[in-house]
Amino acid sequence: MRYTDGKVHDITIAYIGGGSRGWAWNLMTDLAKEESISGTVKLYDIDYDAAHDNEIIGNALSMRQDVKGKWLYKACETLEESLKGADFVIISILPGTFDEMESDVHAPEKYGIYQSVGDTVGPGGIVRALRTIPMFVDIANAIKEHCPDAWVINYTNPMTLCVRTLYEIFPQIKAFGCCHEVFGTQKLLSRALQDIEGIENVPREEIKINVLGINHFTWIDNARYKDIDLMYVYKQFVNKYYESGFVSDANNNWMNNSFVSAERVKFDLFLRYGVIAAAGDRHLAEFVPGYWYLKDPETVREWMFGLTTVSWRKEDLKRRLERSKRLKTGEEKFELKETGEEGVRQIKALLGLGDLVTNVNMPNHGQIEGIPYGAVVETNALFSGNKLKPVLSGKLPDNVNSLVLRQVYNQETTLKAALKRDFDLAFSAFVNDPLVTISLKDAKKLFKEMLENTKKYLDGWKIKA
Amino acid sequence: MRYTDGKVHDITIAYIGGGSRGWAWNLMTDLAKEESISGTVKLYDIDYDAAHDNEIIGNALSMRQDVKGKWLYKACETLEESLKGADFVIISILPGTFDEMESDVHAPEKYGIYQSVGDTVGPGGIVRALRTIPMFVDIANAIKEHCPDAWVINYTNPMTLCVRTLYEIFPQIKAFGCCHEVFGTQKLLSRALQDIEGIENVPREEIKINVLGINHFTWIDNARYKDIDLMYVYKQFVNKYYESGFVSDANNNWMNNSFVSAERVKFDLFLRYGVIAAAGDRHLAEFVPGYWYLKDPETVREWMFGLTTVSWRKEDLKRRLERSKRLKTGEEKFELKETGEEGVRQIKALLGLGDLVTNVNMPNHGQIEGIPYGAVVETNALFSGNKLKPVLSGKLPDNVNSLVLRQVYNQETTLKAALKRDFDLAFSAFVNDPLVTISLKDAKKLFKEMLENTKKYLDGWKIKA
Amino acid sequence: MRYTDGKVHDITIAYIGGGSRGWAWNLMTDLAKEESISGTVKLYDIDYDAAHDNEIIGNALSMRQDVKGKWLYKACETLEESLKGADFVIISILPGTFDEMESDVHAPEKYGIYQSVGDTVGPGGIVRALRTIPMFVDIANAIKEHCPDAWVINYTNPMTLCVRTLYEIFPQIKAFGCCHEVFGTQKLLSRALQDIEGIENVPREEIKINVLGINHFTWIDNARYKDIDLMYVYKQFVNKYYESGFVSDANNNWMNNSFVSAERVKFDLFLRYGVIAAAGDRHLAEFVPGYWYLKDPETVREWMFGLTTVSWRKEDLKRRLERSKRLKTGEEKFELKETGEEGVRQIKALLGLGDLVTNVNMPNHGQIEGIPYGAVVETNALFSGNKLKPVLSGKLPDNVNSLVLRQVYNQETTLKAALKRDFDLAFSAFVNDPLVTISLKDAKKLFKEMLENTKKYLDGWKIKA
Amino acid sequence: MRYTDGKVHDITIAYIGGGSRGWAWNLMTDLAKEESISGTVKLYDIDYDAAHDNEIIGNALSMRQDVKGKWLYKACETLEESLKGADFVIISILPGTFDEMESDVHAPEKYGIYQSVGDTVGPGGIVRALRTIPMFVDIANAIKEHCPDAWVINYTNPMTLCVRTLYEIFPQIKAFGCCHEVFGTQKLLSRALQDIEGIENVPREEIKINVLGINHFTWIDNARYKDIDLMYVYKQFVNKYYESGFVSDANNNWMNNSFVSAERVKFDLFLRYGVIAAAGDRHLAEFVPGYWYLKDPETVREWMFGLTTVSWRKEDLKRRLERSKRLKTGEEKFELKETGEEGVRQIKALLGLGDLVTNVNMPNHGQIEGIPYGAVVETNALFSGNKLKPVLSGKLPDNVNSLVLRQVYNQETTLKAALKRDFDLAFSAFVNDPLVTISLKDAKKLFKEMLENTKKYLDGWKIKA
Repeated sequence: MRYTDGKVHDITIAYIGGGSRGWAWNLMTDLAKEESISGTVKLYDIDYDAAHDNEIIGNALSMRQDVKGKWLYKACETLEESLKGADFVIISILPGTFDEMESDVHAPEKYGIYQSVGDTVGPGGIVRALRTIPMFVDIANAIKEHCPDAWVINYTNPMTLCVRTLYEIFPQIKAFGCCHEVFGTQKLLSRALQDIEGIENVPREEIKINVLGINHFTWIDNARYKDIDLMYVYKQFVNKYYESGFVSDANNNWMNNSFVSAERVKFDLFLRYGVIAAAGDRHLAEFVPGYWYLKDPETVREWMFGLTTVSWRKEDLKRRLERSKRLKTGEEKFELKETGEEGVRQIKALLGLGDLVTNVNMPNHGQIEGIPYGAVVETNALFSGNKLKPVLSGKLPDNVNSLVLRQVYNQETTLKAALKRDFDLAFSAFVNDPLVTISLKDAKKLFKEMLENTKKYLDGWKIKA
Repeated sequence: MRYTDGKVHDITIAYIGGGSRGWAWNLMTDLAKEESISGTVKLYDIDYDAAHDNEIIGNALSMRQDVKGKWLYKACETLEESLKGADFVIISILPGTFDEMESDVHAPEKYGIYQSVGDTVGPGGIVRALRTIPMFVDIANAIKEHCPDAWVINYTNPMTLCVRTLYEIFPQIKAFGCCHEVFGTQKLLSRALQDIEGIENVPREEIKINVLGINHFTWIDNARYKDIDLMYVYKQFVNKYYESGFVSDANNNWMNNSFVSAERVKFDLFLRYGVIAAAGDRHLAEFVPGYWYLKDPETVREWMFGLTTVSWRKEDLKRRLERSKRLKTGEEKFELKETGEEGVRQIKALLGLGDLVTNVNMPNHGQIEGIPYGAVVETNALFSGNKLKPVLSGKLPDNVNSLVLRQVYNQETTLKAALKRDFDLAFSAFVNDPLVTISLKDAKKLFKEMLENTKKYLDGWKIKA
Repeated sequence: MRYTDGKVHDITIAYIGGGSRGWAWNLMTDLAKEESISGTVKLYDIDYDAAHDNEIIGNALSMRQDVKGKWLYKACETLEESLKGADFVIISILPGTFDEMESDVHAPEKYGIYQSVGDTVGPGGIVRALRTIPMFVDIANAIKEHCPDAWVINYTNPMTLCVRTLYEIFPQIKAFGCCHEVFGTQKLLSRALQDIEGIENVPREEIKINVLGINHFTWIDNARYKDIDLMYVYKQFVNKYYESGFVSDANNNWMNNSFVSAERVKFDLFLRYGVIAAAGDRHLAEFVPGYWYLKDPETVREWMFGLTTVSWRKEDLKRRLERSKRLKTGEEKFELKETGEEGVRQIKALLGLGDLVTNVNMPNHGQIEGIPYGAVVETNALFSGNKLKPVLSGKLPDNVNSLVLRQVYNQETTLKAALKRDFDLAFSAFVNDPLVTISLKDAKKLFKEMLENTKKYLDGWKIKA
Repeated sequence: MRYTDGKVHDITIAYIGGGSRGWAWNLMTDLAKEESISGTVKLYDIDYDAAHDNEIIGNALSMRQDVKGKWLYKACETLEESLKGADFVIISILPGTFDEMESDVHAPEKYGIYQSVGDTVGPGGIVRALRTIPMFVDIANAIKEHCPDAWVINYTNPMTLCVRTLYEIFPQIKAFGCCHEVFGTQKLLSRALQDIEGIENVPREEIKINVLGINHFTWIDNARYKDIDLMYVYKQFVNKYYESGFVSDANNNWMNNSFVSAERVKFDLFLRYGVIAAAGDRHLAEFVPGYWYLKDPETVREWMFGLTTVSWRKEDLKRRLERSKRLKTGEEKFELKETGEEGVRQIKALLGLGDLVTNVNMPNHGQIEGIPYGAVVETNALFSGNKLKPVLSGKLPDNVNSLVLRQVYNQETTLKAALKRDFDLAFSAFVNDPLVTISLKDAKKLFKEMLENTKKYLDGWKIKA
């Protein structure tokens, strides 16, 4: 890297999962808009062709006149090649294919277990983790060997276990996980401010929050806009919309869109706990007992959120593949608009180009009280000149902490089970998952079936008869 | 107190719940057999007549020739009178009546929630705690005022919350809780030793165990008899009897007795976790998700344990009242046999008459890692000369600790709710109980109904419409 | 307070010690330069006339054309009056007079104990603390009563014990302590950058550091400017100047000025510990064994720092009193230049006008590992919209932590001794101070003499014969 | 091992340092008196002939008619040979010779630093530790390889660092350290009971104490005999004998014997801290600032204890060598009297032949609050059937904990320095030792000289010019 005139040149970013038709394009756009940094993005993907497509797409973008951030994109044949010399590593992979995910999400439905996402916790999240952890073991070892000083940003789910695995294998790694779910809650607070106080269009960055919890089950116990206590504003807002739900845009009706909700789960949790759950309702519902919000499709409808099916994901992928082709041929061009992601701002702050405070996922070294040391938690952190230091975030109320700890311990157990390839240990996590509300016998059958469906990625496992 | 020739005289014991027709009689028998200590037992009960009956029964016992330990029994009109000058306080009360307990145990059945005991955790345990905590607040305050230096032994359930309340109100109290459930597991290990190794009649005191957990959900992670590793013996034993169950005595068939089980729950937990659950199956089943062992009466039968009904308890009380009459008139006499309780041995050790190591319930000051400081836990402790010091007991496996913590946090929440009379807080504990596997709406209805049924003891509460 | 157009009006600041001829004037200057906030500063001082002089001086300043921040200054007769309605409280008092300080600093010299400042630790710091703590008890109680929600900024020494006392008396207080010593070390790093790397005039705010320790004995374990590792730069700098010392400005020769040093103590500590001590040498020398740097005046000269005498302070006060007169009559006017203090920036950040990260003194809630919970420590913290959250700062090397803990425990002991007025307890802190390198007998004599000299402020103490 | 009729046969004990003419003979005597255990003692020593002499002496003892415990003694040529198959390992070595110890103890006297023992802390203790740690690294590795399940009992000084090293190298080791210093304090309490209360000859085992601290700097915060509070008795005792000192036996005058003291240091510490220091005055004096009790020989005399010279030790060794010859030839025979050591009782308890509670040195896992996790501390522990579990011992007063922590951190630093062979790190511990009350320059000279004197044992070190 070279620093001149407040700019940094010759930065090397390794992008693992560089064939992605989503996150990778967001990064390209964000880099294109930023003039203070430049360098090379090395794209690695198990699907080399996909990475190569993105090389073409990225370099075409860099050639555009209206692009300020000029980067060279380069597909790599091996993980090692992409990591060598990297200053930053971005990990954004799909662990397995949508076929495995189909089993994760839908196999449990036979037993009456419904999942709205199925990639974080729940039976689907656990099995996905068992499949993903060995991949992250390999990645951690490769980073340790090829670029131990690089900053590593993870976007892959299950976020907590991905980051936790990196640190388990290479404790000195400088890794953190990023997720935009909290931003959505800041935006909701901005809407509440408008609805209750009549203050319009406050950008989310001005909504000052204290964040604590684990990814997709994060909480806000203090929120403020200037001299206004947003906890109080939100209370009025929740009371107003508890029954009807709240959907911000007419065209984003929760009934038509498996990603949108009417925030009723979030409102219900607030009324019970007094703190704000800071993730989408589809995620939140999966962290608590299944009979609360996910008992059956009717219950889900009452709580006004959607179940994201994997067939939808497969359709969506087809659309993105089409778009990829158009982008490659130049038939379509990126719009240089705001993506809402923070990766580039984080990179800048780590390069010393201005401090940044935002929420990240990192091992707990005291930033949250009442959660075991070393477990990966989500709180605010200060990015400042090659340093990333969590902000002390206090303690969740006991009744919320209990819900969080149940998942934290399940995650620790899942990690150990994945590393040891221990069926019994993994099953003990599975039956302790709040969505697995079935008999021990059925749970065993289901678990075996789900492992069978993903066994291609479970090298060395012995799935018990 | 006076010490002469290795004996201690003029000891004063206050017995709260001194009208009891069970625990109180055990104490009388144990005191009668012990010659090294003597003094006065002051019996206090909200039912003065019951205490007075026990005064007559106790003093008659002291007159017997074959009795070595001579004590004066004296019923007291007020709590204060009983506590003044006490060296020891024993608390063994029934919080409310069996009518309230009937609601605790059976009201949830309408919603398909079955409880095998209903006095510790589960919906019944939580509501019982809400009723009991104010009583223990009063007791703690009275001890603080009238006998702050006394040793306080609690036998009342819910054990954990009773002891926890005493320390919350009067942090300097010298209190601990005693329970014989662990002894039963030591006896089971002795049976396993006989069955697997052919070593007969090993007394439970010679089964050396490391104990850790919370009352009625305690665990053994290390057990040994001389050079024999009992964890390994137990593994063989479990494998042998997992399907059939194990019942030690022909006449104690689990099907005929609501207190007996065939240990299948214990065996199942061992196979999953590798550590020994050290309480009766009826208790253990209540600490884990309801769909595991308590889904419905048929599931309970498959796991070969019994649901103790409150009508059985009412019948049993009648029998004990009859016996009380016979004891009072002298028609019946106590047999001076082993009761299996340790209270008198503990008292002796605290008086400096020989050390004792046994399991007790006390606030966690580090005796268990991974459980919050201050929560009441059960481990071994050393009784020695006016000192009671827990033995460092290590850490539960993560997957077990997760189950334990769920209850620990629920108990802390229940305590706070009871002290603040906070319906919402109490309800947040209620819906997080592993047995409350119903919808939020039903849970609310049930909770209100149960509170209504015990409202006589919920002074100052506002049960929400 | 009112918020309009990004400005905040009608703020109330209570200034305890408002007759000050130093810190108060700095605040006036900083407020005058800042246009986004305005309101009233209520000046309270036990010397009412001094506060009243500052009222005149402050209001005259507000009248000036070139002043952007317009504040009303108002002297108050009582502490209560100043605190009522306060949004912020600034505490900057002299505990006792320079006569007591003369004893603190110079009485120990009879026994060969030399102190370079005598207001933080050492025999002088301990006795000063015993005198100051009761004053802070009163202040904490008054804040609790009159403005419990106000933010409280302390500048008084001994910093750690002042802040610690506020929290001991009123645990919910929103207090922190500010000190500019760390800024000086940032400036030194900027000098090193110039000297070693030829990069000139880097402002201290761009020197990104991780700060951890206790006030006046703070440490930096990571320092960076853009891509430059300043720990490495500093190492070269120390090696270059270890023998000669380093003094930045010709006219600031350490031999002529009791406040300036040649940084040799700092350099020596760095060579031994590998981390940067971040306070002036005069302070640092007092935290370590007296025979290291403060054995006698000759040793002090070798290490090239100065002993600040109290007679110098008395002279200096005279000069400031003269200046006060001139300011009052208008004969002299403030220059509106940079004071280097951060109070106003902190106030703005707490009002929600932009985030700020800087070092503050607060109770340890995990921001430093290896130092007891609750002890007041100095680390970076995030000021953001009515929230102040420490940044997780890690752990000192064991050999440095040992030196820090010795002071932390001495401070805790001193606090308890002051609250209980316990001579023996206070003496146990006194003899454990690293500067008290004399026999127990002499130490007792000295301690009594020093207490006698300050007994006017030791109400309720019994100084043992 | 074989268990029959309450006895255990075929036990194998490895004795490292088996040529010892002191501890080894005590063990022989204790084993000879105990009939419930028997087997083989394998004697390993770097001086094979010494071990062989003890083989002869031990086997002769086993042949005696009056000996109940029959053991086979066998000298081994290698460490490996002695460890293979061992059930217990005893480590009791002299690290280096008395020539190195002469430097440890007396070299510092040139700089006015006096040491009363010089084997635990102080300049001598630190240098001894640097020499000893590599030996314990080797022993730990050999145990890990040859008998990982054996119980390991250490008697070697510096106790804390020897045990700490074993755990650092082999964390699963089942090791603990034994020391009789606390027993001496129990005996002193028994004397106090006689002197103040007229109760005679209470055996030390009946003095119930709570023990906490580090080896040779252990403290008692609660002591009781039956209903008598010995803390109060001791207070009266200390007040009575503070000035005159207390020596129990006429022939044990402290002036004539370098091992005896008049307990004045202990009394002085009690008056200052309110808790009882539980080690000999010679040890205690070395843990606190040198100017307190060890300023010069005159000060030592005033405090009425002795400086043990190494020339005395050399003389004593000659006497023991003479005795060894006589024992070997049969000219002299062991008396089978009480040695006062507890090793054999501990072995029995670990074999399951009765529980034992006594004080041991083990890593802190919560048995003491306020001391870092993992540091080796001394508290009571429960020996019971192949388990050794510390008893929760609470917390030292802050002012005592400060003194203890200074040593704990110095020990951790010394360990790291020894493992890394890091001169600077070792020196940072050296200058932080409370006895090293000299200038940094002199300290450096002294430290180098002392390292030079022991350099034969400092393989791989670079002693800086």
